[in-house]
Formats: sequence, C-alpha cells, structure tokens
Amino acid sequence: MTYAWWRAGRHRDEAVFHLFFRKNPFGGGYAICAGLEEAIAFLERLRFETSDLDFLARHFPEEFLRYLEELRFTCDVDAIPEGTVVFAHEPLLRVRGPLPQCAIVESPLLHILNFQTLIATKAQRVVFATDGDPVIDFGLRRAQGGDGALAAARAAYVGGIVATSNVLASKHHGIPVRGTHAHSWVMSFDHEQDAFDAYADAFPDSTLLLVDTYDTLEGVAHAIETAKKLRDRGHHFAGIRLDSGDLAYLSIEARRMLDEAGFPDATIAASNDLDETIITSLKAQGARINLWGVGTKLITAYDQPALGGVYKLSAMRREGGEWMHRIKLSEQLIKVSTPGVLQVRRFDGGDMIWDELTGATTSTIVDPLDPTRRKTLDGEGRDLLQPIFREGKVVYAKPSLEEIRAHCENDFARFHESIKRLVNPHRHPVGLEQSLHDLKTQLVMEARART
Amino acid sequence: MTYAWWRAGRHRDEAVFHLFFRKNPFGGGYAICAGLEEAIAFLERLRFETSDLDFLARHFPEEFLRYLEELRFTCDVDAIPEGTVVFAHEPLLRVRGPLPQCAIVESPLLHILNFQTLIATKAQRVVFATDGDPVIDFGLRRAQGGDGALAAARAAYVGGIVATSNVLASKHHGIPVRGTHAHSWVMSFDHEQDAFDAYADAFPDSTLLLVDTYDTLEGVAHAIETAKKLRDRGHHFAGIRLDSGDLAYLSIEARRMLDEAGFPDATIAASNDLDETIITSLKAQGARINLWGVGTKLITAYDQPALGGVYKLSAMRREGGEWMHRIKLSEQLIKVSTPGVLQVRRFDGGDMIWDELTGATTSTIVDPLDPTRRKTLDGEGRDLLQPIFREGKVVYAKPSLEEIRAHCENDFARFHESIKRLVNPHRHPVGLEQSLHDLKTQLVMEARART
Repeated sequence: MTYAWWRAGRHRDEAVFHLFFRKNPFGGGYAICAGLEEAIAFLERLRFETSDLDFLARHFPEEFLRYLEELRFTCDVDAIPEGTVVFAHEPLLRVRGPLPQCAIVESPLLHILNFQTLIATKAQRVVFATDGDPVIDFGLRRAQGGDGALAAARAAYVGGIVATSNVLASKHHGIPVRGTHAHSWVMSFDHEQDAFDAYADAFPDSTLLLVDTYDTLEGVAHAIETAKKLRDRGHHFAGIRLDSGDLAYLSIEARRMLDEAGFPDATIAASNDLDETIITSLKAQGARINLWGVGTKLITAYDQPALGGVYKLSAMRREGGEWMHRIKLSEQLIKVSTPGVLQVRRFDGGDMIWDELTGATTSTIVDPLDPTRRKTLDGEGRDLLQPIFREGKVVYAKPSLEEIRAHCENDFARFHESIKRLVNPHRHPVGLEQSLHDLKTQLVMEARART
Repeated sequence: MTYAWWRAGRHRDEAVFHLFFRKNPFGGGYAICAGLEEAIAFLERLRFETSDLDFLARHFPEEFLRYLEELRFTCDVDAIPEGTVVFAHEPLLRVRGPLPQCAIVESPLLHILNFQTLIATKAQRVVFATDGDPVIDFGLRRAQGGDGALAAARAAYVGGIVATSNVLASKHHGIPVRGTHAHSWVMSFDHEQDAFDAYADAFPDSTLLLVDTYDTLEGVAHAIETAKKLRDRGHHFAGIRLDSGDLAYLSIEARRMLDEAGFPDATIAASNDLDETIITSLKAQGARINLWGVGTKLITAYDQPALGGVYKLSAMRREGGEWMHRIKLSEQLIKVSTPGVLQVRRFDGGDMIWDELTGATTSTIVDPLDPTRRKTLDGEGRDLLQPIFREGKVVYAKPSLEEIRAHCENDFARFHESIKRLVNPHRHPVGLEQSLHDLKTQLVMEARART
C-alpha cells in the first residue's frame, strides 16, 4: 500500500487511524489496556535498515527504496496510559500523520497492544478470582514464542500478579521472580525426603516443596519432616506446592497436617491448568490454597487467545487540504467504523467518545450498537487519550512498570463490583457523543446512497 | 534447581529427559513436529552472559556464578526431524547430560517445540480442509508477540501454507510473501473505483482487490471495471478478496459476475476468522473461494492455543555410576512417566516406543493408557529420533525450510486418510514395546509400595 500511495503521489496526504476492539474479552465487562511502552519503543526506532531495503529490492524499484530509506516517523500519537480500565469501542491509541506511516505501523501496533491488553485483562480476572491471594505467572513453557512470554509476564504484572517464574522477564522488566522446583528435582534423588532436605539446605528461607511426585499426602508428610529440621535450625518454612489431583481435598488435608505439625503460616501453593473459573470453583469448595501458580491459561489467554483489536482510518486530508471524515460500511453494525479524530472522556456515569474535529461535546451519549439507548452524563469528565508523540518525538513521561501497576490497581478500584463479575457482568455505559452519532448516521446513509 | 544441585555436589550427575505431549491437539489424530531449528540455535548459543550473571548475583553466591559463567552445553540431543508426523506419547526430543544443563534448557525447549508443533499441526489441518486450494498466513496482527508471529509463520509454512502476509517472516525465513490491500486503501480515495484503479496501476500483474469496504457486490463490479482496464493494457487480473458477510453466497455471486465479464481465472480469496471448520462448511455450501487467508485462528491456534508438551526425567546416573530408570507417579495413568532412554520406531502398522537402555525390541506394543490393547508390528521399522548434538556439538545436517516442508508433505501422504479426519479420527497405534511396558509396570508397583 505504501508503494501504491507513493506511486499515486498520495504519500504526503495525512490520515487519522484508531486502534480499538469491538468486544470486551473473556465475556467480561472490561479490559486493562497494556503494551504502550513496547509500542513507543517500536515507533521510536522505526526505520528501514539496509538489510530491509536489500530484501525489498526484490519487489520494488530503486526510487521507492530511497523514499523508504529516508522515511522517519513524524506522526502524532495519542493513547490511553497502560493499566487503565477500558471498554469495547474506545480508541486505545490514535495515530495522525502521513498515510504510509500510519499504514506501516498498523500490524506491529496491533499485535503489541492486542496481546498485552489481552493478558493484562486475563491477569486482572485471575487476581479478582483469588480475592487477594497472590498469583504467580508459571506460563513460560507454554508461551507462544519467547518474546510472547516476556511481554505476557510484563502485562500480567500490570494486571496484578505478584511475580513470575520467568527469570528473563525478571531481568528485563524487574518483575519479582519466584518459583519452586520441578518433579525432576525429586526424581534425581533416591528418596523424596532426601530431595526435600537438599532443597531446604539450598534455600532455607524460601523452601517451597512440590509434594506430588509420588503420593501427595505422603509428600506433605515428608515436607513436614523437612520443615521441622528447618525450624530446629531457626528458619521459617515457606510451604508446599500441589500440582495434580483433587486440589480442594488435598489442600484441606495438607492444611490440617501442616497446622497440626505447628506450621500454620506455611503457604499452600497450587498449580495445574488453573484459571479464574477453576480458582473460583476451588474457593467455593473451601480449598485452603493461598498462593496460585497460573501458567498456560494465563500466558496464552487460553479461552480467548486473541483480542480482535482493529485499526481503522477515520479521517484524512489531502496535502494542504481540510480534514474530511471517513467511514467504512459493513452489513454488521458493529463493523461500521466511527469517523473523526476521536477522544474518550470518562465521567462517573459512563464514557463518551467524542470528535475533536467538530469539537462537539454535548452531554448525551448514544450506544454504538443500539441508537435507542442513550444516557446523559453529569459532572466533569476527563479525557483518557494522552499525547504520546508529537511530530514523531516522544512527549510522554513514560511511567515505570511499578507506577503502571499501581495505576491499574487504583483505576480498577474506582469501578463498581458489578462490572468486574467474571460471568454476565453489568455493562459500563460507553457511547458516541450525540452529534458524533448523528454525523456517523448521516455519513452511513450518504455512503449507502452512493453505492 | 541448578544452584541446589551444585550445592549438593550433584551437578556432574547425568540425566535423560524427554519432551513429549500427551494428547494430539485439536481433537485430531496426529501432530506435525516443528521448532527443532530454533531449538538447535538456542542450544548452540547457550551460555550465561555478563548481564545475566550480574542479575543473578542478587540471588546467588559468587562461587556459583563462576560455575554458571563456565557452563557450556555438553549434552547429547536426539530429536525427530521437523515436518514429521508424530503422535501423543512419542518423545520428540531427548536430552542426555549433566542434570543442571538438562534442567536449564527445559523451559526454552518446551516453549519452542510446543508452539511450533502446535502451529504446524494447525496449518496442516487448515490445508487439509481447503483440499488443495492455497492458504496464506494473515495472522501477524493477532499474534502473541513479534517472534511468536515469525515462528508461527515458519511453522505454518512447514505445515503447508504457501505464503505469509508477514514481510519480516519472508525476510527472515524466505517464505513467499503475499497480501492484499486493507480497507484503509479504499477509504483513502473518494471513490472505490479510483482506489482500485490506482492499486492496479501499482501492481498490474498482482492486483488482488478487497471489495467489501462499502458494499461487496458493488465492489466486485468496480473490481471488474478495473480488471477490464488491466486486460486492455495486456495484464492478467489477479482477483478479489472477500472479508465479511456471507462468504458462500458472495463468492458464488462474485464467481458468476467475474465469469460473465470474461475473468474465469480471477482468484476469489476470502478471509474473516477462518479456520478448518469454517472452511469445511464453506466448501460444503459450494463456496467458490480458491485462495484462503487464515489469520487469528491459525497464528494463535485459537481453539487450542497450547500443546501441553512436557519434559520429564526418565533415567539418571551418578558420576561414574550406572544408568538407573526413573519414574514419576500420578493418580492419573496418563501422567505417569515412562522410564528409560527412549526411541521411537515406526512400522507400517504403528509406532513402538522402546528403551535403548535395555535394548529390548520385541515386536509387540502395549497401549500406554490401556494395557489390554496390544498389537504385533511386522516389517522393518525405522527409528525416528536422529542424533542432533553429541557432547554439545551439532552433528546434524540441518535441512533447509523447503526441505522440511517437502518432508512434511511426503510424510503426511504416507498416512491413511482416516487418521487425518478433522473430527473423530482413527487412532494410529502407538505403544510401549512390551518389555518396556512390563518394566514400567514393575517400577510403578515398587514405587507405590515404597510410599
């Protein structure tokens, strides 16, 4: 497309694109946006390297390659800060600048924001289900690629997990690292007791023992023997991990055994294909688990492994011309795009998507999927999209990962419990500002009349 | 674990680990193994860099860091070549060497082979469903991380897709690159006809036009106008792409319009959340689609986004000692590990997992999940696991990606249609060589008696 625009002399025309998703993931009532830091890093280093140009020379003429060689990112970008609670239809990120630049960044921006937003949201759901118990990312071995694992560990940390077993993610992102041993540790000794004792020797103050290599409750008894030796030497025994079997029953029995042996503070960690649904069920069964290792289902967002975010053109101007609204039609209302240069204004009672091109901000919003549903929003709203790039330069004070995580926790706390329900949540009102809705309707009618 | 082994003086003890999965993915009858090339590249460069050691210095003593600094990969590795048809329970890869080395490579090997095997298998299923029509990877925007997208494009190519829209994957792996324009191309012009004509000017011999920005069949009419102009100028019109709506109906109508206008060779490509199930259904409805763009559902293996491969210790020896079998128990038979140094021998009638430690190769196999199911295998069998590393050095003549892809196609062709069915396939017999089964049973009984 860049080549064709360049060839048609359209490469200095400007456009506005928005990145958004059409449906809250996992059947839930919200999403946690994430990935902006990686998106910024990508945009900052955007350029065609010599090896890229050599590759593209097989497909394109020399003069176009010179254009690419000189291409630098000069767009304006606005985005919602990472860790913010967001909803379907809301632009998470907006790019304004020359058409080819907007188009070149489409796929990278989409895969970065789609994936991290998905994982941050899944993590928040899992943390919600544990009701305050800490959650650790155990997913590296099942991740879709190495940087998938790194990005997911980071996004999951934004969403509220406390640590990861991925040591490289700890090194790269400063996420606390925690883990336990594998079955192979136990199998490398002739007796489970010897394996536990040797592990305790190495980590006397953080001995978390995996007890199910042979027989879980026998394993708990061996762990208690090790714990007593640690106590005699003045150390605090960390606890045990269950990784198979009936986690509700086994955790209740293990708790009883640990309590009777004088280790009421010992942690009972669990893992084994956990997700928010299974955790909720285990809690309902009275499971005595207080540390949750969540792997496959978190790192791949197993029940919905893609967010489905899209990136749509909504306004453009010819070189030296005026901005014009643009719209894409579809048989399905949900796939008709919203025209304009969009901003999201959050009020206590709902979110308003409004158009900076017209500047109209009446107080009524219209449901994008049902124009008969309208709501008047009171109070002071605040705009969510913040300036990130201006003419290709970063103008955003990038928060640290800890700040992003704290922002997420605070922002999430602002919302009512009813939208956080894991199943059939209440819908937070999100709508188009009324005059934007009217403009969209008019443009759709005109476009349909044209075809 | 490495620290604890080192501290216990066990770091020169040797072990054998196998990587395998327990269930064929997607409810299917087979998998296509992939990822070995990346696994080899990872193992070849295995070492702790200064920055790694600096990071680890927060957690471990100096003397141990010196051990890590000097650590080099010295293991033997055997693996099944990429592109081979494989089945549940079969070791895809085997590592033999010092305990800590075997353990350090666990998570990287798992995420590399798990993911690429999953995607190669999904691609083969999609290609099977199209019954000879070419399939293109359209998944970049929905991938789980950037190298997830690259690795998936490569694995999908192994599994039989013909091209990718991911230009970087083409640059890195030499996969043919193909694609069409986006809706934004059409929206950047005042009229769809102008957009199509301009695109045709840029790519006169590969003009594939996306026709659903406003109204699909109106779009087909515009595309035909452009096609006529191309024909007048002596070019071959490539075709159209449908991306929404009723793909069966629209493709039949579009085929009729294109045929009537004298373009019977024009391709009708389709995309929009396709997978093997939807493709099968569209085919059954008589859809006239002959090029399939498969994105989200392929690149994330949407209906099963993780393979669930594991990596288990099955034998070990103390420094200077004899090899000993090792077994892990579980309440679930499927999770009880198989002891030994395992090899897979493929016969016409089934696959035998046998143990190189005992060397026994009777001709009877026993189903690992149902010991009453047994089968005698006739003929010459050939062993699937090939030497890849010996004492840390690569001894494998790495095939090119094209060779791997051809091997996959040939190997897949060897199997009966019944195991390739997408739903409820026939099971290819895979079993433990009888004396290995007997040994496993005995070790399980002994271990259960011990606890």
